[in-house]
Amino acid sequence: MIDRLDAFVSSKSEEFISLLKDFLVIPSVSAGVSSGSAMREAVGWVQRQLRGCGLDAVIAETGGHPAVLADSGPAEGPGPTVLVYGHYDVQPVGEEALWHSPPFVPTLREGAVYARGAADDKGQLLTHILAARAFREVSGRLPVRVKYLIEGEEEVGSSHLAALVEDRRQQLECDFVVLSDTAKFDETTPAITYGTRGLVYKQLTLCGPKHDLHSGSFGGTVLNPGNVLGRVLSGLKDAEERIAIAGCYDDVRPLSAEEHQALEALPFDEQAYLRSTGSPALSGEQGYTTLERRWVRPTLDVNGVFGGFMGSGASTVIPARVGAKVSMRLVPDQRPERVSQAFDEAVRALVPPGVSLELETLALAEPYMCPIDSPQIRAAVAAMKGGFQRDPVLIREGGTLPILPLFRRVLGADSVMMGFCSPNCNAHGPNEFLGVEDFLAGIRTVVRFLDLLARA
Amino acid sequence: MIDRLDAFVSSKSEEFISLLKDFLVIPSVSAGVSSGSAMREAVGWVQRQLRGCGLDAVIAETGGHPAVLADSGPAEGPGPTVLVYGHYDVQPVGEEALWHSPPFVPTLREGAVYARGAADDKGQLLTHILAARAFREVSGRLPVRVKYLIEGEEEVGSSHLAALVEDRRQQLECDFVVLSDTAKFDETTPAITYGTRGLVYKQLTLCGPKHDLHSGSFGGTVLNPGNVLGRVLSGLKDAEERIAIAGCYDDVRPLSAEEHQALEALPFDEQAYLRSTGSPALSGEQGYTTLERRWVRPTLDVNGVFGGFMGSGASTVIPARVGAKVSMRLVPDQRPERVSQAFDEAVRALVPPGVSLELETLALAEPYMCPIDSPQIRAAVAAMKGGFQRDPVLIREGGTLPILPLFRRVLGADSVMMGFCSPNCNAHGPNEFLGVEDFLAGIRTVVRFLDLLARA
Repeated sequence: MIDRLDAFVSSKSEEFISLLKDFLVIPSVSAGVSSGSAMREAVGWVQRQLRGCGLDAVIAETGGHPAVLADSGPAEGPGPTVLVYGHYDVQPVGEEALWHSPPFVPTLREGAVYARGAADDKGQLLTHILAARAFREVSGRLPVRVKYLIEGEEEVGSSHLAALVEDRRQQLECDFVVLSDTAKFDETTPAITYGTRGLVYKQLTLCGPKHDLHSGSFGGTVLNPGNVLGRVLSGLKDAEERIAIAGCYDDVRPLSAEEHQALEALPFDEQAYLRSTGSPALSGEQGYTTLERRWVRPTLDVNGVFGGFMGSGASTVIPARVGAKVSMRLVPDQRPERVSQAFDEAVRALVPPGVSLELETLALAEPYMCPIDSPQIRAAVAAMKGGFQRDPVLIREGGTLPILPLFRRVLGADSVMMGFCSPNCNAHGPNEFLGVEDFLAGIRTVVRFLDLLARA
Repeated sequence: MIDRLDAFVSSKSEEFISLLKDFLVIPSVSAGVSSGSAMREAVGWVQRQLRGCGLDAVIAETGGHPAVLADSGPAEGPGPTVLVYGHYDVQPVGEEALWHSPPFVPTLREGAVYARGAADDKGQLLTHILAARAFREVSGRLPVRVKYLIEGEEEVGSSHLAALVEDRRQQLECDFVVLSDTAKFDETTPAITYGTRGLVYKQLTLCGPKHDLHSGSFGGTVLNPGNVLGRVLSGLKDAEERIAIAGCYDDVRPLSAEEHQALEALPFDEQAYLRSTGSPALSGEQGYTTLERRWVRPTLDVNGVFGGFMGSGASTVIPARVGAKVSMRLVPDQRPERVSQAFDEAVRALVPPGVSLELETLALAEPYMCPIDSPQIRAAVAAMKGGFQRDPVLIREGGTLPILPLFRRVLGADSVMMGFCSPNCNAHGPNEFLGVEDFLAGIRTVVRFLDLLARA
C-alpha cells in the first residue's frame, strides 16, 4: 500500500510542484491593507484542492479573512479523528529589492521553490492536502477521518480563530491536531516540535516633566525619565541574566532527566547557530545550555526603546517621556496572567517618586507542551523516518503558537507539529524557500502518518 | 549726568520700543536652511545702529553667518575697556500654531513685546547699543572705551567664533566682557550670573546581532543590546542620584561658606520652580539643595534613547542596535576632556562581552566661573540697583556658555552677565517676550554701568 502511495507521489511530483507554484502566485498577505480579492482567491483555491480530494469543504466567514473547513466524513476503521491546521495567509514581502526573484513569482532555483509563503505555510500546508489526494487516487478514501481548518489570519495574530473554533466545536471535534508550521531541526534533520513558549508583551512609559526641559537649566533638579528607564530595565534582570521578578521561576516545570538527556543528544552546532545570529557571542542565563535557554527557560527581552531626542547631533533635553517595549517568553507551567501581574509589580517597585508610570499589556499567550509518548507522536516519528529516510528529532520551539493552547482548551486536543522546511528558510524575510525534496518528503510523511494511525 | 541720561531714555522710550520691533521683524534664524538675506539684513541693521552711535562698526565675515565688530576708540579717561558681546541670530520658531501672535510680527501685549528673539538676544543686546546712543546724544561720547562683538551663530554653537576672536585678538583686546544673554532670578529680581556649567555630550550605541532577531527563536541565547543599555544607563548613576563614574567628583570645587550662604539667602520659590517643570516632584543628588543641584553640582542626563521596535503594537524582536544620547553638565574645576575620558571608561566597563559598543563625543565645553569681588561686578550690582530700583542677586546658571571660557582663554577677559529678561521668557519656545519695563530698566542699567566704570 505505502509502495503504491509513494509511487503515486513520485509520478505526480511535477504536477504537485506546479500546484504549489499556483498557490504561491496568490499574494495573500494578511497584514496591513490586505487585498480582499487575493484572500478570496487563496481561500477559494484551498477549497477547490480539498474538494478535489473528495472532501466536503466549505468557506467559513469570520469577522476577518475567511477560513476553510473540510471533513472526510466518518471513517470505516477504528482510527482516530485528525484535525489538520494550516494557514493560507502570508507575511508581507518586506523590502522587495532584497529578493532575488519576485516574491509572488515562484521560482525554482538550486532544488528549492522561492516565493513568499513557500515554507510558511502554503508549501507545508499543501503536503497535508496532497497526501489526502494520494489516498483518494490510490485507494479511493482516507484511512482515518481527517478534518481541515485552514485560516487566513495566522500572520496577524489569528484574531478571529478562537471565536470560530468555539462556534464550530462540534464540527471540529477530533482526537488531536496536526500541523506543519514549524521547521526541521537543521538542514538534514526533520523535527517534531512538542513544546512552544508563551508570551507576555508590555509597553512601559515613564513620564517626568510636562514637556522636554533644558538639561542645563533643569538638570539635577528633577528625575530624568531616561535615567529611570535604565534603572527599570536593568532591574528586571540580574547580572547573571536571571529574570529579577519575584516568583517568576516558581511555576517553571523542571526539565526531566529524560528530556535533559534528549536535549543533550541533539546534534546542535553552536558555531553555526552563533553565525546565524551575527552576535559577537552566545550568552544568557548562567547554568543552562544554549538550547535550554532557547526552549525551556523563560526570557525577558527589551524589544525597543524610544523617547527624548532621537535625531542626529546633540540636543540637551530632559525628556518628558521615554518608553520601552519589553516581552517575556514563558515556559510550562508559567501562567501569562500571573507573570504579567508580577512584571507590573516589579516595574512599579522600580519606579521612584518623581516620575510616573504608564503600563500597557500588548499580548498574553500561554506556553504549550504535549506528552511525547502518545500514539500520534510515535506515529509521527515513524512516518517522518519513512518519509525523509532519516530519524527525526523531538524538539521544542522558542517562539509562541497561541493556537495550540486554544485547541487544547476548546477541543481538548493536543497538537503534533511536523516540521518539513529548513530552519533557515527565511520564513519572515526575503527569499523564503521550500526545498523540493523536503516538500515531497513531507507529502510522503503525511501519507505514512495517516496510514500508521489507521493501523495503530 | 545720570539724571540727564535717564531723562533721555524716558523721552525716547517709544522710539526705542519701535526700534526693538524693527529688529524683531527680521527672521534671522541661524539653524537649518537659514535665510541668507535675513541674516544679512539683521547684521546690516546692527551695523547701522552702532554707526548711529558714532562708532566705527564693520561687518566681519566668518565661514558662516557674519559678525559685527565696533569700537568707540581710545577713551579720554582712565577707565577700563569693555567688550560687549551679543548675538543677532534667533532660535527657530518651532510650532507656529502655539504662538498667540506671529513670531516675526512683534506685538505689544500686557506690557511686553512678544516675538522670536525679544529676549534671546535681540532685546537684551539692544539695551547695550541704546545705552551707547544715550551717551552719544547726551554727552557726545562714551565714558569708557567700548567695543562690540555681535555674532550670528550663537544658537547653532558659535562654530566660527573661536577663529574670529583668535584672528582679531588685538582688535578685541579688553579688560572684561559684558553681555546680557541670561535672565533675571525671578520676575522681580534682576540678576548677575557669575558661573555657568560645562558640557560633555555623548552618543553611545550598543550592537548585538547583525540584524533584528526573532525574540522567540533566539531569546535567551544572545545578549540583547536593549537590556544591556538599561544596565549601562543605570550604572552611570547610583540610587542616590550620584554620578557613578570614578573620579568624577575629584575636581569639583567645594562651595565656599560665603557662596553657600549667598545661595541660601536667595528668594527661591521651590513650588513655583516645580510648577515650571511640570514634574511630579523635585529630586536629585542627595545632600544638596535644589539650587545647588541646579548650579554647582555636576549632572548626568539621558537626553534620548532609541532602537529596536519603536512603532505601535507588539513586535517581538531582539534589536540589532540601540542607542542613547547622554550628557553631563560640569562645574568648576572639572575638565571636559578628563570627564569625557572617565565617562568612556565607565561605559566600557559596563558593557559585557556579547555586545559591542560605539562611542561618540558630540560636544565638550568648559564650565566657567569668575570672581564676584571685581570692580566690574561691583559696578554691575550698583548699576542694576539703580536701573531696576531693586537689589540684584548674584547667581549661577545651570546651562553652558562656551563663549565665556573662550574669552578668558584668548582675550584673558572675564565676563559680566547682566540678566534683564524674565526667567520664564520662553527663550526657545513659543511666545517669547521681553517686558517693556525690563527693556528700559536694562538700558538705564547699562548707562549706569558705563558711567560707574569711568568713575571707578
